[in-house]
Amino acid sequence: MPEASPVDTAVFDAADHAFMAEAVQLACRGIYSTHPNPNVGCLIVAGGEVLGRGWHRRAGEPHAEVYALQEAGERARGATVYVTLEPCSHSGRTPPCADALVEAGVARVVVAMQDPNPQVAGQGIERLRKAGISVESGLLEAQARELNPGFISRMERGRPWLRVKLAASLDGRTAMASGESRWISGPEARQDVQRWRARSSAVMTGTGTVISDDPSLNVRLEASQLYGVEPLRQPWRVVLDSQLRLSPGARLLSLPGETLVMTVSENTAARSALEKAGATVCLVEAHNGQPSPQAVLAELAACEMNEVLLECGPTLAGAFMAAGLVDELVLYLAPHLMGDGARGLFHLPGLEKMQDRIALQWQDMRKVGDTLRLTLRPARD
Amino acid sequence: MPEASPVDTAVFDAADHAFMAEAVQLACRGIYSTHPNPNVGCLIVAGGEVLGRGWHRRAGEPHAEVYALQEAGERARGATVYVTLEPCSHSGRTPPCADALVEAGVARVVVAMQDPNPQVAGQGIERLRKAGISVESGLLEAQARELNPGFISRMERGRPWLRVKLAASLDGRTAMASGESRWISGPEARQDVQRWRARSSAVMTGTGTVISDDPSLNVRLEASQLYGVEPLRQPWRVVLDSQLRLSPGARLLSLPGETLVMTVSENTAARSALEKAGATVCLVEAHNGQPSPQAVLAELAACEMNEVLLECGPTLAGAFMAAGLVDELVLYLAPHLMGDGARGLFHLPGLEKMQDRIALQWQDMRKVGDTLRLTLRPARD
Repeated sequence: MPEASPVDTAVFDAADHAFMAEAVQLACRGIYSTHPNPNVGCLIVAGGEVLGRGWHRRAGEPHAEVYALQEAGERARGATVYVTLEPCSHSGRTPPCADALVEAGVARVVVAMQDPNPQVAGQGIERLRKAGISVESGLLEAQARELNPGFISRMERGRPWLRVKLAASLDGRTAMASGESRWISGPEARQDVQRWRARSSAVMTGTGTVISDDPSLNVRLEASQLYGVEPLRQPWRVVLDSQLRLSPGARLLSLPGETLVMTVSENTAARSALEKAGATVCLVEAHNGQPSPQAVLAELAACEMNEVLLECGPTLAGAFMAAGLVDELVLYLAPHLMGDGARGLFHLPGLEKMQDRIALQWQDMRKVGDTLRLTLRPARD
Repeated sequence: MPEASPVDTAVFDAADHAFMAEAVQLACRGIYSTHPNPNVGCLIVAGGEVLGRGWHRRAGEPHAEVYALQEAGERARGATVYVTLEPCSHSGRTPPCADALVEAGVARVVVAMQDPNPQVAGQGIERLRKAGISVESGLLEAQARELNPGFISRMERGRPWLRVKLAASLDGRTAMASGESRWISGPEARQDVQRWRARSSAVMTGTGTVISDDPSLNVRLEASQLYGVEPLRQPWRVVLDSQLRLSPGARLLSLPGETLVMTVSENTAARSALEKAGATVCLVEAHNGQPSPQAVLAELAACEMNEVLLECGPTLAGAFMAAGLVDELVLYLAPHLMGDGARGLFHLPGLEKMQDRIALQWQDMRKVGDTLRLTLRPARD
């Protein structure tokens, strides 16, 4: 007869919840700067008193646990540690946090979620347990996962978290027939978009949008507006450019930071011109003459891109949506009507019956200035 | 030197506000049944105690003041009356309420708003003042106006309050290219629409919608779901049918209640067939071969229609919107994508520049089941 499998019987009390909630809040402060690392927060507590707090700021700098241990000092001995992600057990740019916790003599570690990398998950917890530390996992796990949708997606699915940002009139129109589109949404909404860019590893668009709008796609905020980690990190700019039509004079090539052009064209002259202008050009697999959405995302994951913000026209938005690769839609709806001659949100050829329509589910809705911001994710089956 | 003009110095205290707010709540109970009369609520108060409450139920039945006076009885002498609309001074189907208040010996009357009919406004107040009663006006006037947008519109502008109800996918599509549209929104939203119908004097659509969907356009709720006034009042059904293409076999002609067909066609055979099927057919002025939106609304006002609910396709919705005749848009947005091959919300030919787009302002937003309900009105200049 097989042995009964061990059941995780951890029961968390109200204090556990409150301390882990604070650790989640701490972790949030890294969302603009930890790329490509995950956001992590850590609290060290004894006798109901918080002895140390830490959050990860930037790759190469200490992990959250290290800051919290530094603050707690000798008092960490016998204390409880709340950490939003399983402590690492490997030496990366910094030594393993599990070892540091063992060395500090903590008695108990509460972990919100295991390491999402299936090849390492559980090893940090194992190392702590072997050292005699009591370890419990799963407290506020859903909230902890929301801290790192991109990192988790890359580890678990081998692709970034793809967030599509679109702005439309109330009747679902993104530009007049002429292409005129400035501005659909109000100034507060455009400022809000800056924050989505700032937390993204990359901002992606199509060459059509670059040719018609010549956007900068950069973050025009100060570090002080983004939890203060200096210097401000600029997301990569990614242009999907099947035929390498992008002009070497495009504004986004003149700005600080990386520009990645993904193409299916082997036109070496055009490639050299773009490279000379500062771009990195990457040849990807084609699908119907365009960069394959799957191949694009696989390549971006290989470049350690966690969250990718897609700001584009209806063709590209429709292609990623139809491929089932959109994880989140952020739609800014302005209180205007542009009429049915104007351009739509998603080009979805072949969608002809009501039963074929794409189901989403509400995630968030709020006013941003005079613009309504709706966030949706694919409906669960 | 001209005399200083008299200034209304009425100052209302917290108790005044609370009592008038209750009168407004009482008035609301009539919204499904008072057509073509306005909704009115009344409270009689002395020494902080409510002595009588009344609300108008149905044309031909007593006004709100009469119910409140009946309940208060002799104690009304010297009391304060809160009423959401200036008491009437004319004998209609019931005797003038101003006289009844004078006779009851009340000391003070607080009125939320004057009679919106410019030809009678102030006469009820005048009659009360002449009898030595202290009268103040303007308390919660904005809320009182919201009780009767249709009645006020008809009195002040000679047209009904036109509310357009549309249901669309998140990307602003109301039907697949084939016309298939059942169902865009969820069951809770469709139930919610029943309430908009129930409060309307008329539900209006175009003949195209009738031909493709064969809708009933009636109210499928019980009186008990609508403040309990029996029997349930069915709104008129109005079909704009330029060429009298409506089939005498259309479902809406088979249902109890009035159907009004508005046309620009003088085809007497088609007219007789529809009249034989129970419709009233009305010839109105043409605009581009269609019933002129202005003429349609003028005719409906002449028929004492207060609130008109327009449930229609993009052509008709666009025509009324472009004419500046839409007072309120109720848009149900479902969390689906239908793609840019599907039909839009408003056909607005000639709208080609961003500066030409139609500006609205948010009035209300809420979830109804899984559907988002957005209410907007034209932006104020």
